[in-house]
Amino acid sequence: MSDLKKRGRLVVVSGPSGVGKGTVLKYVLENEDFVYSVSATTREKRKGEENAVDYFFMSKEDFSGMIERDEFIEYACYNGNFYGTPKFFVEDMLSQGKNVILEIEVKGAVQIKSLVPGAVFVFIAPQSKSGLAERLRARGTEEESVVANRLAIAENEIRSCLMYDYIVVNRDGMAQECAKDIIAAVKAHNLKPENVYSDICEFFN
Amino acid sequence: MSDLKKRGRLVVVSGPSGVGKGTVLKYVLENEDFVYSVSATTREKRKGEENAVDYFFMSKEDFSGMIERDEFIEYACYNGNFYGTPKFFVEDMLSQGKNVILEIEVKGAVQIKSLVPGAVFVFIAPQSKSGLAERLRARGTEEESVVANRLAIAENEIRSCLMYDYIVVNRDGMAQECAKDIIAAVKAHNLKPENVYSDICEFFN
Repeated sequence: MSDLKKRGRLVVVSGPSGVGKGTVLKYVLENEDFVYSVSATTREKRKGEENAVDYFFMSKEDFSGMIERDEFIEYACYNGNFYGTPKFFVEDMLSQGKNVILEIEVKGAVQIKSLVPGAVFVFIAPQSKSGLAERLRARGTEEESVVANRLAIAENEIRSCLMYDYIVVNRDGMAQECAKDIIAAVKAHNLKPENVYSDICEFFN
Repeated sequence: MSDLKKRGRLVVVSGPSGVGKGTVLKYVLENEDFVYSVSATTREKRKGEENAVDYFFMSKEDFSGMIERDEFIEYACYNGNFYGTPKFFVEDMLSQGKNVILEIEVKGAVQIKSLVPGAVFVFIAPQSKSGLAERLRARGTEEESVVANRLAIAENEIRSCLMYDYIVVNRDGMAQECAKDIIAAVKAHNLKPENVYSDICEFFN
């Protein structure tokens, strides 16, 4: 029986563009047991951005060094700039008992599944195709063909949701309920026998 | 996408004698989404007991008829009286969207696992051997050999907990937290892909 603070859990969150991830995660982060994973990047700091809050800003040399030393959970290159999830930040937060939210697309999530066995995987799904199409349309002035293309990509992502541990549906006007679902899922994940065993192993000796 | 009220879930709860199931479940039942399964019995109604609240009181003939018509989820005989969980009550509550708590020992739970595939299984475990022994001692004026015997039975039951879906530890003075864990477990169980699929099947067509 340990009175030490329980380690937090890495919470990998995916969901298609337009599903409302930002709003849902904002509500989750109001819970003090949750923090958002801060990424490292080689791109220029923009006005108003803060180091170690928005991103860890670093040079390409430093980023390359971290890649070589295997210090990222995952990383990728977009438009000539590197972005990655540094292990040190996640590890620091987990050891403080915080659940760390890592928002990442489906392909990245698959990689993490084998790298971090203790992570819990949550997929945010839209309520309906028509609702998702509406939200994608409302986002910009795009032509209908662009919307149709984005919808096709989203539907493809959604079909990957069955490999996640939990699926939360973000229903219209229910983002806060959806956030509560995510919090319950993480809480319940910690109650699975394999995760409780160390607390009650006394009874198995 | 269905707007019909979601069916409730059968919540099978076990835990050793002395773990404090009564107090924990009292807190769970303060949540209006949960009801306690009312059993049927052939024993005499005691003063203060109410039919359909404490038990469904019935004759041995009626009870036998229900057994023959396969109208119990499970039943057993103790001290010459029959006790059973009538399907009609559970089904009625589930269809009203209520989660039905069925408190039952480990052996009965095993039977239900194959009978009701949708049920969720929760085990209430004590914090420590010494704590459990203390609670068993506090219960009565029993001799130490009786306590030791009960503790051995309890420990045996606890070793079955790994086959439950979720294990909640009832820590000293934390019964309310333990109840919250049970509620989160049931909520999260409904978020598992196999239980969400029907809500998002539109995306798989």
